Amino acid sequence: MTYGIIGTGAVGGYYGGRLAQAGNEVHFLLHRDYDYVCEHGLQVYSCNGDFHLQHVHAYRAATDMPQCDVVLVALKSVNETLLQSLLPPLLRPDTLVVLAQNGVGVEQDVQQWFPDVHLAAGLAFICSSKTQPGIVRHECYGSINIGNYSCPDGTKVERLVAELRRAHVEAHSVEYHEARWKKAVWNMPFNGLTVVLNTQTSKLLENPDTENLVREMMLEVVGAAQHLGVQNLDASFAEKMIETTRVMVPYSPSMKLDYDFRRPMEIHYLYQRPIEIARAAGFLMPRLAMLEAQLRFLEATRL
Amino acid sequence: MTYGIIGTGAVGGYYGGRLAQAGNEVHFLLHRDYDYVCEHGLQVYSCNGDFHLQHVHAYRAATDMPQCDVVLVALKSVNETLLQSLLPPLLRPDTLVVLAQNGVGVEQDVQQWFPDVHLAAGLAFICSSKTQPGIVRHECYGSINIGNYSCPDGTKVERLVAELRRAHVEAHSVEYHEARWKKAVWNMPFNGLTVVLNTQTSKLLENPDTENLVREMMLEVVGAAQHLGVQNLDASFAEKMIETTRVMVPYSPSMKLDYDFRRPMEIHYLYQRPIEIARAAGFLMPRLAMLEAQLRFLEATRL
Repeated sequence: MTYGIIGTGAVGGYYGGRLAQAGNEVHFLLHRDYDYVCEHGLQVYSCNGDFHLQHVHAYRAATDMPQCDVVLVALKSVNETLLQSLLPPLLRPDTLVVLAQNGVGVEQDVQQWFPDVHLAAGLAFICSSKTQPGIVRHECYGSINIGNYSCPDGTKVERLVAELRRAHVEAHSVEYHEARWKKAVWNMPFNGLTVVLNTQTSKLLENPDTENLVREMMLEVVGAAQHLGVQNLDASFAEKMIETTRVMVPYSPSMKLDYDFRRPMEIHYLYQRPIEIARAAGFLMPRLAMLEAQLRFLEATRL
Repeated sequence: MTYGIIGTGAVGGYYGGRLAQAGNEVHFLLHRDYDYVCEHGLQVYSCNGDFHLQHVHAYRAATDMPQCDVVLVALKSVNETLLQSLLPPLLRPDTLVVLAQNGVGVEQDVQQWFPDVHLAAGLAFICSSKTQPGIVRHECYGSINIGNYSCPDGTKVERLVAELRRAHVEAHSVEYHEARWKKAVWNMPFNGLTVVLNTQTSKLLENPDTENLVREMMLEVVGAAQHLGVQNLDASFAEKMIETTRVMVPYSPSMKLDYDFRRPMEIHYLYQRPIEIARAAGFLMPRLAMLEAQLRFLEATRL
C-alpha cells in the first residue's frame, strides 16, 4: 500500500519513517522542516534502533501529493479544520484515513466534513519528540492501536496492522470506542494535571494525594465509557495505567510540552468533547470538568 | 470587659487595636514584633480611619498575660496545637474564647483539649495585612460574625458584639454553624484556586470557565451545609458572594499570601475537615476534594 503522512512530527515522523524504512512508498507532508529534510533526509533515533532515510518523498503542500491507499493524520487536533483542505488531494474513494490524534470526537468531525471517507482511529502509545528539524527522538514504548470507525472493508485495517508489524511497529486492531476511551483513561488525568501543577507524571504518582486524584479521574473516564457501552474497559484498566506510568521515566505529556512552548493546548478534543458526550448520555465527570476549566483559565491568561 | 489577643497579626491586630482605641483594656501577645511595638506602639492604617496606639499592653509570652474576660484567637490554624499551652494562662472559668480563624473544625478541637472552656467562632470579613512589624493595613470591609459554640451565657456574646460596635467594628451575632459555613462558601473556592492558578479573585471571575467553577464549588459548600442542617444558607448566598467579590479590588486571599511567602497553608481546617465532616454525613464535595489534593501536592513539592 502507499502512504501519505499529514503532520510529520514526533508521531507521524516515527510511524511514517518506520513504514518507509521497511520499503513502503511513503509521502510526507512537511512544514517548517521541508528544506532540511529535502537536503538531509529524515533521522530517527529510536530505542528500537536508529535509522536514517536519505531520500524522502517530501512535500510542502498537500496539493502536490499523490492519492494514497492510507493517509495517516498526525496533526495536533487544534488544527483539525485544516484537514478540510489538506485531505482531498490524497483521497481516492477507498483511501483509509487514520486519525492518529488524541482525544474523543475527531472522527465524528472529519466524517461530517467528508461523509464518504473511510476513517479509523490511531492511538499511539509512544514517548517521542521532534525538537529539531528532520530529527525524531523515540524514547520508549511505540505501540499503536487501530480502531475501525467507518471503513466498510475491515480487511484493509488488518492489512495496515500487518504492514506496520512488518515495519517493526507493535500494532493492534482494537474496537473503535474501546481504542479511543482507553487512551483517554491515561490522557485525561495526566495531560491536564501536569500543566496545572507544573510537574511530570512520576511526581503525580509519588504524592499520595495526587495519585488518588489521578485514580479518581481515571475512574471518571472508565465510568463514562462504561455508561456509553464501551466493552473491555473497567477499573482494573485504570490500575494497569497507573502501574505502567509508575515505572515509566518521568514524563511530560504532549499538553505539558504544548503549554511550556506556548502552543495552543488540545483542550477541545481531550476534555470538552468527551465530557460533553458523557454528559449528554447522563454521566458527569466533575473532576475532569474542573480540570478543563483550570486549563482554559491558564490558556486564556498566560502571558 | 478585658481582652487578650493571641496572634497580633492582620486580624488580631486590627480588632484588638479597635477595642483598645475605644478604651478597653486589651492585652496583646506578640512574637516577632514585640520589641518594635514596645518601642513604637501599634499603627493601624484603616479605610475606616487610621489610628495609633502608643502604649500597648504587649507580651512576649502567654504565661506573662493576665486572665481576661474575652480571648480573641487570631493565630493561623496551622499552629492550632499551640493553643494547648497559650490559652491556659488567660483563662478564668467564665472566659469567652473567640476563635477568629478560618475553616471548619477549630472549635471541636479546642473543646476537646479544654472541655470546659466557653467557645465562640469569629468569622472576619476583612481585607487586611501586616507586612511590617507593628503596622496593620486594613484595606476594606471589616465586619465580624460571632457564633456562640459552647458559651452557656449567651448575653456575654451579645455584650462582646456591643463592645465591638462601640469600637466602630461592624459585628453581628450569628448562629454558629451558619457563621462557619457561610464563610466557607467564600473561603473554599477562592483560597485554593488563587494558589493553584496563581491568580487573584478578580481574574477568576472575569474568566467564564473559572467563574462557573467558583460557583459550582460554592454550591458544593452550600449543599454540604444544607445536608448538615445549617439554616439560612442556600444558593442565593453563593450568588451574593460572587457579586460581592466581583466588585472587590483584585484580592489575594490569605492562603495565596501564605503560599507566596512560603508559609504553611491552612489546608487542614479550610479543606480537609469540612470535606470529611460532609463525607461522614453522606455528602461528597468532589471539586473541593480535588482542590485539596492539588494544594497538598503544591505544598509537598514546592522548593
